[in-house]
Amino acid sequence: MIYFDNAATTKIYSETLEFMKEYSENNFYNPSALYTPALKILNDLKTAKEDLKNLLNFKSGKVVFTASATEANNFALRCFAPKNKKILVSSGEHSCVYQTSQHLKEQGYEVDYILLNEDGTINLEDLNKKLTPNTGFVSVIHVSNENGSINDLKKVSKLIKQKCPQALLHSDGVQAFCKIDVNLTDLGVDLYTVSSHKVHGPRGVGALVFNSKLNPKPLIFGGGQEYNLRSGTENSAAILGFLCSAKKMHQDLALNYQHLSELKQSLLKEIEELNPVINGSLNNCSPAILSVSFVGIKGEVLVRMLDEKDMYVSTGSSCNSKHSGNRVMLAMGKNKQQEAGNIRISFCEQNTQEEVIAFCEELKKNVKKIRELNIWKK
Amino acid sequence: MIYFDNAATTKIYSETLEFMKEYSENNFYNPSALYTPALKILNDLKTAKEDLKNLLNFKSGKVVFTASATEANNFALRCFAPKNKKILVSSGEHSCVYQTSQHLKEQGYEVDYILLNEDGTINLEDLNKKLTPNTGFVSVIHVSNENGSINDLKKVSKLIKQKCPQALLHSDGVQAFCKIDVNLTDLGVDLYTVSSHKVHGPRGVGALVFNSKLNPKPLIFGGGQEYNLRSGTENSAAILGFLCSAKKMHQDLALNYQHLSELKQSLLKEIEELNPVINGSLNNCSPAILSVSFVGIKGEVLVRMLDEKDMYVSTGSSCNSKHSGNRVMLAMGKNKQQEAGNIRISFCEQNTQEEVIAFCEELKKNVKKIRELNIWKK
Repeated sequence: MIYFDNAATTKIYSETLEFMKEYSENNFYNPSALYTPALKILNDLKTAKEDLKNLLNFKSGKVVFTASATEANNFALRCFAPKNKKILVSSGEHSCVYQTSQHLKEQGYEVDYILLNEDGTINLEDLNKKLTPNTGFVSVIHVSNENGSINDLKKVSKLIKQKCPQALLHSDGVQAFCKIDVNLTDLGVDLYTVSSHKVHGPRGVGALVFNSKLNPKPLIFGGGQEYNLRSGTENSAAILGFLCSAKKMHQDLALNYQHLSELKQSLLKEIEELNPVINGSLNNCSPAILSVSFVGIKGEVLVRMLDEKDMYVSTGSSCNSKHSGNRVMLAMGKNKQQEAGNIRISFCEQNTQEEVIAFCEELKKNVKKIRELNIWKK
Repeated sequence: MIYFDNAATTKIYSETLEFMKEYSENNFYNPSALYTPALKILNDLKTAKEDLKNLLNFKSGKVVFTASATEANNFALRCFAPKNKKILVSSGEHSCVYQTSQHLKEQGYEVDYILLNEDGTINLEDLNKKLTPNTGFVSVIHVSNENGSINDLKKVSKLIKQKCPQALLHSDGVQAFCKIDVNLTDLGVDLYTVSSHKVHGPRGVGALVFNSKLNPKPLIFGGGQEYNLRSGTENSAAILGFLCSAKKMHQDLALNYQHLSELKQSLLKEIEELNPVINGSLNNCSPAILSVSFVGIKGEVLVRMLDEKDMYVSTGSSCNSKHSGNRVMLAMGKNKQQEAGNIRISFCEQNTQEEVIAFCEELKKNVKKIRELNIWKK
């Protein structure tokens, strides 16, 4: 089996699973309870928040754990964005930011979208034009989940500080966290979203990290957990499991980055003969993600052919698999054929060069076979 | 260690943990992906929904999995209750229903509260009086998390059908599911909330089960999972783990019920000499929960004294531990002293008669000690 869909989800680290099993057995108490072993768990959760802030270099931040990055992004847009001000959202967002922005629009918020460059990054000139003194909230994805392109958040935050210093900058950092260097203090970001299951942590945990001076509304009402912003019994074992995985990945970031870059280079070299169309940037891109089209071939067909050989890739965001068409690809100015032809290959540090070779062999065989059939049909 | 706070959370079954570990290792794929092993997981999740509907005898229902019962209750009230109609909420609700109803009130909804009887059940006469043709949504907890009292949902649904047949009946079934018989078709409930970690399942999973003809708004926007009502990558291993535990508990329900009733009887007999004030009903009550005050003694003091002997009980809902005062106790007409004196003892089927004896010995020692000190002080 070759798993190259790590942007969709990653396999949890064995040591994290082991930790969670042990923690669930010995520390199952409700952290809101008043007795000693429950207070210990509450303390562990506090440490997890500190750990997360350290990994992101955001010491002045506040952490609210959620059940997913989707929930964290909903929380960011719906509970922090001021209603009487304009909201700017990039056209390259994950569906959870995009759909939430559409919801806000229906609720009467003024929402506008920032154009993309052909490489998938946001168009800074367009941002500059759309930033007005009345802009209250800007959301720009850090690393595109569709194609790996990296947005220059430092430039974005500088522009914001110049043109509307009171506006908040939110970034969905799901594909960036533990994969590229993230220093929130340096980037000038006010709110940042991360996900556990994209960094070899358990499913069911996300977090929003934000400037502690902000005073949002709650997203979920109830018992008052998470500073009364997100009620519900804390998912202690999973939250701490998330931090186990994140700390391990973060520690190996430089090594992993190098390894992933080499995998990507090998893959690009191997498929060169197929004349691929790269969807996204080659220079300014996460080494973990490569989106590519092969002219005349539908991505879905390739995904299914590879599936038969136990090789797993996607046509783009899994969270978009139920929608028709790839909104982000079209925003990048790709034509319908390129858009329908896209496959997304996404690595993790456990992938090997041998897997890349075996995968490319199968990919080349299939692309050539379909192309020959197409010629024959004509 | 004696753990008598099972209404706050339960310890996950070892076999469920084992199952989840294995499932996370072998079925880690994103269920929204297009390849074969991902489709298998999607299918497992469909089976889990069918299983849950079977356990609740609600074949015509639809299941949306959430991250908690708190989220499911937020979903029920915020996404199903019609804005132009009156919402009736019992005064005995868990804080996640109560706080959500307060939020709706702030949003301009008309919300009214149903009075409680002294035993913690809702006052049906008051309900009858407050049900008007304009009532659109009624929320009544099935088993009180504070004192175990059971509301007669069948009578409630009959009253609703008589006076405002279009109104929806929601019930928070967290302390009922797998603990007492629950037959939603028979009870006439339209929406029902359950929680995983209250039935020896993992933290981080809840569900709302509802009449499939209903057409609610989404609570969380994004990739369109869960019929586009609750986006976010499905927490597959935990959802399936929840069903493992729930099915096991449900299978043993009658046996467990008998065992818990015996534990409760023993405890009541043991503490009789202390002249306890029972907060809640004795006849119409879950055998898993007993709330009791000892005149002149603060509940919190007892909780801390027992903690020192590794015996864990609570003063009431953990989700209320951060709020001052017990809203539900006061709604039952309890005086301040009874309210402050409350301790909640809650069993699971793994508790034993030996634990009850050892616990009561310690409890009696402490109650007597404090009472003697109080007399001496006077």
